[in-house]
Amino acid sequence: MEAAAAVFDERGYEAATIADILARAGVTKGALYFHFSSKQELAQGVLDEQMAEGGVPPRESKLQELFDVGMVLGHRMRRHPMLSAGARLSLGPDMREIFGGGSVPAWIEVTEQRLAQAKAQGELLPHVEPAEAAWIISAGWAGVQLYSQTLTGRADLEYRVASFYQHLYPSIATPAVLARLDMAADRGDRVVAEIRALELALGEEEEADQAPVRESLAS
Amino acid sequence: MEAAAAVFDERGYEAATIADILARAGVTKGALYFHFSSKQELAQGVLDEQMAEGGVPPRESKLQELFDVGMVLGHRMRRHPMLSAGARLSLGPDMREIFGGGSVPAWIEVTEQRLAQAKAQGELLPHVEPAEAAWIISAGWAGVQLYSQTLTGRADLEYRVASFYQHLYPSIATPAVLARLDMAADRGDRVVAEIRALELALGEEEEADQAPVRESLAS
Repeated sequence: MEAAAAVFDERGYEAATIADILARAGVTKGALYFHFSSKQELAQGVLDEQMAEGGVPPRESKLQELFDVGMVLGHRMRRHPMLSAGARLSLGPDMREIFGGGSVPAWIEVTEQRLAQAKAQGELLPHVEPAEAAWIISAGWAGVQLYSQTLTGRADLEYRVASFYQHLYPSIATPAVLARLDMAADRGDRVVAEIRALELALGEEEEADQAPVRESLAS
Repeated sequence: MEAAAAVFDERGYEAATIADILARAGVTKGALYFHFSSKQELAQGVLDEQMAEGGVPPRESKLQELFDVGMVLGHRMRRHPMLSAGARLSLGPDMREIFGGGSVPAWIEVTEQRLAQAKAQGELLPHVEPAEAAWIISAGWAGVQLYSQTLTGRADLEYRVASFYQHLYPSIATPAVLARLDMAADRGDRVVAEIRALELALGEEEEADQAPVRESLAS
């Protein structure tokens, strides 16, 4: 799957061939088809992995949590071909026919869930509709990712993602919530370190009881 | 060029072949190469056309003018393959190497010019940096276009573009300016009708003096 992600990331879905993926993975055709029946199935696997990477520690403020998701994704996309391949597959021009929009509807949905929680606990300005705002935030994030990739090869991705939320949140958040948010560009580094520490604690406690730490990662 | 735009729009730059474009245009190889020496030159022509479509009548409020540009582009992109091909070419994954980011830097620049004017005449909140906001607005517009294309084949493009500005302008505009903006989803229809009327007036006055009307279209 990692070999497939690297090939999709470099060449795109249409141009990628099973032969490229076999060469990259160093496996035989038989071994590949034992796990995946087609190129489309491999790409679907890459898209599923992308969604699995969306977890961050839960926050009292759901707008903070949503910002953290955006920053952690930006942080990881700079480092993992699986995620950048997922983005390329989701937003490719033929993806609507092949994958029903890739992971786009799922991203809007998880964003909407957090915004609905934020609304329920009074974080949003009265006129804000979670479904509308979720569409715009997901689409805007995708555009920021594409521009950063096109203009700097993602070197400024986290800086731009933070800037995007800084330009959008004042339109949707109550001032009291806004004043307490951490929207710094290095937030991704810190949250990723926090997740690693939680996972390490999970590993050490594994033989005793892993439920409390697992539950502390909201997905 | 229109044939090339249609082929790039449907197949993407990599997959498009000169043979496809010749078949679509109904011309011979010799006739094509008389005007364009390569596929890259054809694509560059499509990108240049996209930039030429950015003109709207000037407005007292430069934030209104910027909104109008976004809406007119959304309106035309639903109808003209030249524009959607331009978007596809600009945002394709290999475009950085081939076209230096396509028309992306130029779009950020024209957006920044309008925001700098808006700032000079007091339309922006004090903390807003035109260059930063221009990057985010251009990238966000591109993401909205991609999401609308992926999810609905651009059926909801103008609605989503309006929603994007509605979610972003309150973070950057002074309340007094904001209250007077027309950010309705049918704004594109109305501005395009206005442009047509101006062009018609231009045609009628052509033999007399066309300067005043030409100047009334800010690019």
